[in-house]
Amino acid sequence: MIEKVIAYLDANQEKFVAELQEYVSFPSISTDPAYAQQVRACAEWLVNHFRRLGLSSVLHETHGHPVVLARTFKSEKPKRPHIVVYGHYDVQPPDPLDKWVTPPFQATIRDGHFYGRGTADNKGQHFVHIKAVEAYLKTDTDLPCDITFVIEGEEETGSTGFASWLKENAASLHCDAIVISDTSMPAPDKPALTYSIRGLVNFEILVEGPSTDLHSGVYGGIVDNPITVLCKLLAAVHDKSGRIRIPTFYNDVKPITAKQKSILSKGSIPAKQLKKILGVRAFGGEKGFTLEERRTSRPTFEINGIWGGYIGQGSKTIIPSKAGAKISCRLVPNQDPHRVYNAVKKFLTTLAPETVALRFQYGAGSKPYMLNPDTELAKAALTALQRAFNKQPMLIKEGGSIPIVSEMTRLLKADAIMIGFALPDAQIHAPNERLDLECFRKGQYTSAFLWQLLPQACK
Amino acid sequence: MIEKVIAYLDANQEKFVAELQEYVSFPSISTDPAYAQQVRACAEWLVNHFRRLGLSSVLHETHGHPVVLARTFKSEKPKRPHIVVYGHYDVQPPDPLDKWVTPPFQATIRDGHFYGRGTADNKGQHFVHIKAVEAYLKTDTDLPCDITFVIEGEEETGSTGFASWLKENAASLHCDAIVISDTSMPAPDKPALTYSIRGLVNFEILVEGPSTDLHSGVYGGIVDNPITVLCKLLAAVHDKSGRIRIPTFYNDVKPITAKQKSILSKGSIPAKQLKKILGVRAFGGEKGFTLEERRTSRPTFEINGIWGGYIGQGSKTIIPSKAGAKISCRLVPNQDPHRVYNAVKKFLTTLAPETVALRFQYGAGSKPYMLNPDTELAKAALTALQRAFNKQPMLIKEGGSIPIVSEMTRLLKADAIMIGFALPDAQIHAPNERLDLECFRKGQYTSAFLWQLLPQACK
Repeated sequence: MIEKVIAYLDANQEKFVAELQEYVSFPSISTDPAYAQQVRACAEWLVNHFRRLGLSSVLHETHGHPVVLARTFKSEKPKRPHIVVYGHYDVQPPDPLDKWVTPPFQATIRDGHFYGRGTADNKGQHFVHIKAVEAYLKTDTDLPCDITFVIEGEEETGSTGFASWLKENAASLHCDAIVISDTSMPAPDKPALTYSIRGLVNFEILVEGPSTDLHSGVYGGIVDNPITVLCKLLAAVHDKSGRIRIPTFYNDVKPITAKQKSILSKGSIPAKQLKKILGVRAFGGEKGFTLEERRTSRPTFEINGIWGGYIGQGSKTIIPSKAGAKISCRLVPNQDPHRVYNAVKKFLTTLAPETVALRFQYGAGSKPYMLNPDTELAKAALTALQRAFNKQPMLIKEGGSIPIVSEMTRLLKADAIMIGFALPDAQIHAPNERLDLECFRKGQYTSAFLWQLLPQACK
Repeated sequence: MIEKVIAYLDANQEKFVAELQEYVSFPSISTDPAYAQQVRACAEWLVNHFRRLGLSSVLHETHGHPVVLARTFKSEKPKRPHIVVYGHYDVQPPDPLDKWVTPPFQATIRDGHFYGRGTADNKGQHFVHIKAVEAYLKTDTDLPCDITFVIEGEEETGSTGFASWLKENAASLHCDAIVISDTSMPAPDKPALTYSIRGLVNFEILVEGPSTDLHSGVYGGIVDNPITVLCKLLAAVHDKSGRIRIPTFYNDVKPITAKQKSILSKGSIPAKQLKKILGVRAFGGEKGFTLEERRTSRPTFEINGIWGGYIGQGSKTIIPSKAGAKISCRLVPNQDPHRVYNAVKKFLTTLAPETVALRFQYGAGSKPYMLNPDTELAKAALTALQRAFNKQPMLIKEGGSIPIVSEMTRLLKADAIMIGFALPDAQIHAPNERLDLECFRKGQYTSAFLWQLLPQACK
């Protein structure tokens, strides 16, 4: 029966591309209030698209942009294994516009790729699941599970409205698995299950010294320079081996198991190649761990930005009145954003001299997420990838974060399966964003196999 | 005979104010090329002013703005003790204009002050010497010395053209003393001889890491963050006692003698008052030295500005490709700007990890200057102040720098006497710059006494 589904998919690639072109044509830029109407128009288009396929779809308001909900089942509650597919219809701004070969919202096929803003992040990626469901429905093939699509419009702005909505509506969304295609695969012949992502906490620190900038000649020698104090505080965070010296910082970190180490050792990009890609003279980081372990399975303390004093042309001999930095920490299981933030705050506050005042501003936080790759769910996902791509799939850990994932698994009481179809050169958030058409097609296959395999794994 | 001179000065204050008003009316803003013509017009006005008083005055071209030279003597070479008076006719831009109570270039008398850009820095201050010389000439009083006025037009832009001109013309300017009124006096009843200024060296440091900004999730843990490296480097400069750890940094520093310590102890602003002025929670700096010693007689390493990564609204989770800082060190006798710069460069380069590249950019440097307060010259200056103000003058050390002073004393083979008539609230470089009219008058008296006293001290 799956053959019919696959045949439908094969027969309709041109139609799907045309539809995706229409979907991509909406500049659903969530970060810019000027585009609020287009964001809504995009959501409405998606609701109608779902309805045309026969799903019951509704636009849900949030205190941010609306959420699109669509169900394959008519009853009030799912009766079979219930899968939630998460995605987002909002996109990043297309700037710089002049770097695009073809206009970002007039999606174009070139060299086997679909170019346009949102093709990879994330319209094109969740579209594979919509098309696989369509194939089941249009070929009258029995769909062995009940599926709910939850496509939000605020992923690029922090999902705050969506997160509140999710909390309120969690009960109606309890499910057996969450499927998310918002990650990458290493190469066209290397399908992958991302079984782990890091969490994140970001915050700002401000060091306040004298009430105004001072003349560094007249007062240099009697006033602690807030930049110097900030440097000393931030310099104290890592020891010589690259380990973070903040007490309790590692308390909740689960050690990397031998099995994890073995999986990670397979997934590495060769060091020499990676060094070239990054343009670094040598690698940095924590001693005692491999590159792949440090990149995916160890927490970090990163200064994303620093400012203070005069940085224009020439010189201005001042002692600035203040200096600040933006910090983010990547977290691994079982670290908690607030616990880590408090540990950092306490450490730096204890260290600061009495000559200055420290101010902290919490930004946002998300917990790390890891799916046990030995579960039936993970195995089902790997099998689906294997069948779709006809290649041995990889298990990968992602160093980055998808903030909503951990919260969603908690609220929906289900594990998340992250399968990405974007290639590393998909230019996500950059000009000429693209989606490989073969990955787009095999993504649909993967999805088609998932609806067969997941229900068995859920039992 | 000096009575005649003083009487002339007293009788002509209104005329002097009117002349200074004319002098101040030129927006001789040297830093802005748009004002080049007005800078020249101002210099030409000054040449004519000198000529009308009977001095031989010439405009000298430099590769920057012109220098005004004026001599009281007709012969090719001075025959009596030769004094050079240094000043500058260029001014700072008047911005922000809306903060001025009266227009900056329409000098106005209010509350016993002369308001206008350049009234204190420096037109009004060197004008006292011109007027004192005028008083001698107009009253046919014998001037016991030969005087050369050297009034440059680039002080506010670093004196580069002037410095070259000075080098070329040094031989014709050899003298017995240099008189400079470009500093301050603590209060109207506290005339002061500034016998020491600190030197300065400034430079920039750049830390280069990966070739572009990197995603802090995907690559966090394997790449050394240039901001972190920069913080570690700059944090290593001072030890816990506030002492600079750079090898050889203090090698040329002359210890503060017991006599110096005694002079400095008299000149201090009470700590409590100073703390309030600066708005600091506590004082910082090097242990083992008093506030006044640290502020005037010890070298510093000051971070004037720092930058790196993202500092806009919200967060951007990147590892930046580079970070930089602007540094300036205040220097004390006998430190040398280049030697100090090289020591800093060597120290930081040795410390930097192999993961980054360091770049240094030398800015500008000037040596410190100190006049021995026990010399006859210094005593003559103090006596002149005592007679003019009828108050016990103070000996003060200035923490700031006047870059050209040290070079000028070297080239002209003479000591410099720095007597300032601007009060601490003269708003130099700020809106509503002003000169106290009583200080202006007593400055003229001081100058009149100097021409009597300095020749004896030079013998």
